[in-house]
Amino acid sequence: MSVTFCSREDAGKIEDATMFAPKYDANGLITAVAIDHETNEPLMLAYMNEESLKLTLEKQEAVYYSRSRQEIWHKGATSGHVQKIKEIRTDCDQDALILVVEQLGAGACHTGKQSCFYRTVSVKDGNAVTEVAKDVVQTFDPEAVYGKK
Amino acid sequence: MSVTFCSREDAGKIEDATMFAPKYDANGLITAVAIDHETNEPLMLAYMNEESLKLTLEKQEAVYYSRSRQEIWHKGATSGHVQKIKEIRTDCDQDALILVVEQLGAGACHTGKQSCFYRTVSVKDGNAVTEVAKDVVQTFDPEAVYGKK
Repeated sequence: MSVTFCSREDAGKIEDATMFAPKYDANGLITAVAIDHETNEPLMLAYMNEESLKLTLEKQEAVYYSRSRQEIWHKGATSGHVQKIKEIRTDCDQDALILVVEQLGAGACHTGKQSCFYRTVSVKDGNAVTEVAKDVVQTFDPEAVYGKK
Repeated sequence: MSVTFCSREDAGKIEDATMFAPKYDANGLITAVAIDHETNEPLMLAYMNEESLKLTLEKQEAVYYSRSRQEIWHKGATSGHVQKIKEIRTDCDQDALILVVEQLGAGACHTGKQSCFYRTVSVKDGNAVTEVAKDVVQTFDPEAVYGKK
């Protein structure tokens, strides 16, 4: 299967368009936020290029583009922590995606937690500080899953 | 009140750092996703520069940076649809933010809907298409709120 996208020029008024015409940034990337399909909890935020977005639609599993490794990144290929796509949503100007996923395995974050968003940000005595949120637990040992780095 | 951030160099291991050391992209921006504090529903995705992020922490209301207008954007200043901050979360590498907000007024999206993510993306006959999701309703008239454009 291969998937065809619409061009921005041919899509008409982007907010009402029924053709999907994703808008990439200057680096050819679009932002994607994975959220849990049952709780809506944000799991991670990453990026896709056109190829990884098409692979995501084809496989119905989240495939990102790793900016640090500069390569296609099939989430869970190493860890087994695959994200099964339940729904994809795009926003009014079609430059961002929400992936509603079933997170397989113990979690989305390479630090061994369910979500990458495990810390709160607040201000104490004029300094912005972070704190691990109350409901966050370590769900797996990253060394056991990813190997020692 | 003014808020001080930590530098990336001084923060130590970013994943474990208790000082907030946001990472901006090449344009000096960090991605922020606003979600509803009761349902976790994603409302919108936008960007902040350092000034708008500090203003967000100071006011405890979402203040973005508008890339199209190239200016600080206090969400709700025109529409009254202010986003009251309930919690801010950052991710493992501190280059993305989740704003857990109470959305005042009828919605977050300038098209008159509660959320900007009102369309699903799927594949039909090899073409990627969008469709307004079943649960989406028009909650306000954008012309009445923002004026005719």
